[in-house]
Amino acid sequence: MQSSGVITITTDFGHKGPFVGVMKGVIAQRFPGAKVIDLTHDIPAQWPPEAGFWVSRSYSYFPRGTVHLAIVDPGVGTERDILIVEYDHHYFMAPDNGLLGRMLDGAENAAVFTLDMDALERLDIKTPSNTFHGRDIFAPIAAELAAGKTTPVCIGKAVDTWTPGWIDEPDVSSAKVSGSIITVDAFGNLISNIDGDLIKDFGRPVAHVAGREIALQKTYGNVQPGEYLALVNSFGVIEIAKSESSAAENLGVERGAPITVTDSA
Amino acid sequence: MQSSGVITITTDFGHKGPFVGVMKGVIAQRFPGAKVIDLTHDIPAQWPPEAGFWVSRSYSYFPRGTVHLAIVDPGVGTERDILIVEYDHHYFMAPDNGLLGRMLDGAENAAVFTLDMDALERLDIKTPSNTFHGRDIFAPIAAELAAGKTTPVCIGKAVDTWTPGWIDEPDVSSAKVSGSIITVDAFGNLISNIDGDLIKDFGRPVAHVAGREIALQKTYGNVQPGEYLALVNSFGVIEIAKSESSAAENLGVERGAPITVTDSA
Amino acid sequence: MQSSGVITITTDFGHKGPFVGVMKGVIAQRFPGAKVIDLTHDIPAQWPPEAGFWVSRSYSYFPRGTVHLAIVDPGVGTERDILIVEYDHHYFMAPDNGLLGRMLDGAENAAVFTLDMDALERLDIKTPSNTFHGRDIFAPIAAELAAGKTTPVCIGKAVDTWTPGWIDEPDVSSAKVSGSIITVDAFGNLISNIDGDLIKDFGRPVAHVAGREIALQKTYGNVQPGEYLALVNSFGVIEIAKSESSAAENLGVERGAPITVTDSA
Repeated sequence: MQSSGVITITTDFGHKGPFVGVMKGVIAQRFPGAKVIDLTHDIPAQWPPEAGFWVSRSYSYFPRGTVHLAIVDPGVGTERDILIVEYDHHYFMAPDNGLLGRMLDGAENAAVFTLDMDALERLDIKTPSNTFHGRDIFAPIAAELAAGKTTPVCIGKAVDTWTPGWIDEPDVSSAKVSGSIITVDAFGNLISNIDGDLIKDFGRPVAHVAGREIALQKTYGNVQPGEYLALVNSFGVIEIAKSESSAAENLGVERGAPITVTDSA
Repeated sequence: MQSSGVITITTDFGHKGPFVGVMKGVIAQRFPGAKVIDLTHDIPAQWPPEAGFWVSRSYSYFPRGTVHLAIVDPGVGTERDILIVEYDHHYFMAPDNGLLGRMLDGAENAAVFTLDMDALERLDIKTPSNTFHGRDIFAPIAAELAAGKTTPVCIGKAVDTWTPGWIDEPDVSSAKVSGSIITVDAFGNLISNIDGDLIKDFGRPVAHVAGREIALQKTYGNVQPGEYLALVNSFGVIEIAKSESSAAENLGVERGAPITVTDSA
Repeated sequence: MQSSGVITITTDFGHKGPFVGVMKGVIAQRFPGAKVIDLTHDIPAQWPPEAGFWVSRSYSYFPRGTVHLAIVDPGVGTERDILIVEYDHHYFMAPDNGLLGRMLDGAENAAVFTLDMDALERLDIKTPSNTFHGRDIFAPIAAELAAGKTTPVCIGKAVDTWTPGWIDEPDVSSAKVSGSIITVDAFGNLISNIDGDLIKDFGRPVAHVAGREIALQKTYGNVQPGEYLALVNSFGVIEIAKSESSAAENLGVERGAPITVTDSA
């Protein structure tokens, strides 16, 4: 695979402190030509499922050969493995804690490796700290991959199992799909793990959240301000919104909440 | 106009989720050499006037030939037009919802176009989603403009009307100017739409906000900690601050509030 | 010193408004090839010690010849000087208000200069505003330094005194070190100014914070969720954490709080 030179970073580090900045510094030391793009650093602290969700739904908007780092890592410094994946013309790197579980379970032809820690020395990477592998392992490896100076097979051990995702796949029957709210965006919209394709044959889809029935619309502007709507959002999943307001606040719903879509046709 | 290769992005998307990141991915797919600079993503949700204010006050600090995207877009997916503007050696692109109204009303020699949706196919841009035109329309068009591969006249229809701005221009008389607070910065300083030029002949300018009289100073350090001051800020407009504290919190004032400057000489 | 072309920016500007964005615009106008990396913009408003702490602990992760701007500047527009420093193969630039005090006090072979304001005209930099030297002085000077077009000695006056740091150095005795919490990260971890080297000979180090005794561990995962731990963090200083929770919130501790480490061996 030809590297694009692009690296994306997804973390739960927030914006206080220099944590993401020093990762970019380490990348610049090894590969001055790298182009680093922040996906988000506001993953809820130590909740890998949201990071995996956004990475799997976003990667295809980047050039082929991009390296996607995703670091939500409560087990940093313990015995957990680091996964390096080559899939669908992109590289992915994340702690093996379920972050990539859902994507890998559904992936065909994913080549999955665990990082061989002996490779660090071969790449002239210093002994990592116990608590910041983002800077000490992920960043330098990403720089090497993005520069085309190494490949997963050179630095990892092929594996065919990994830690499964934390959130169950949606439960699907002929006229009903049950899933979960994966995240809430800055507008307070509730984003679920229910793929729009799962309800594409429904005559009149209705979402059920927090005891309320909400009809499917095409876009936010199709209802009056203050009304609820469901839609298949721009990342292909069912989303609940309240026009010009916050669905999360008004419904009292957070990530992890159940959502069901039925066909009321 | 010669493109600079620089693209700025202003949105109300916040920092949760990959929304800005995927826009940068799409830009990198089409124009790997683009240099993307975030202006701000913390515009209050669905309040275009602040986005327009900052873009119009900031663009001149970027290289000539820069493309400025501004996306605060409650009407995404409905019939609203997308404006593409060539003005003062810069490009601007925003939904036609008043965001650029104030700047265009005051602009001489602005060339204003509405995006011709048929141009998407010619530029090999896929059918956009209904809810994320930032990624599906603005980003690829900006990449083409920044790469110098297209121009507004090639992809738009010239127009001479647009949605007006949401906030009235300041009301000006010989010894009194009445305007509005447009935004509050991270320090709690209140930033108004009153241009410093409007009061440049005042002998002793005094700002009136929330029932309080506040004298004009040169800089923050000219008063004691805890004192209020007014000044012509670095973007050329009247600003109210409380030294080493938050004027917004202490005065209980938010965007939209009235502000008057009188000459008490 | 050979410039790397990299510029880092650390401020208390937050993310509302275009303040950091226009600095990047000014840099791009003068040096289109610059690579600008945000360290953090969430320094607590007008509290220089945290900015100095992070810059001094982070700079070595960037390529040699990088320019580090740090702007926490309550005295902007008053008579305070601007420092330009060449130290350990890096450039640093900050207001002379104590921000760089701790680093410079401990530095050997630092070349310290105050910016000669006459240099602005020689570099074709316009008369600065009174309130935004980040954009009007720091950004263009950084661009010139990063482009290798000027050096500190060309634009500054050598000095051997500067405003001291605001936080005392840790007090060290044979079995006890007393210091301060410098900052709280996004996880609520408390980060102190006590260097791990100061306690490296302690047999059994115990941290004392908010009346609680907390034992030193190797990494976060070494205790059960909800338990407190102390560790030498990835930037080399003592840190207090609560596993999968917020130590700051649960202990009611903020920056400035005292912390002591004793040897209970």
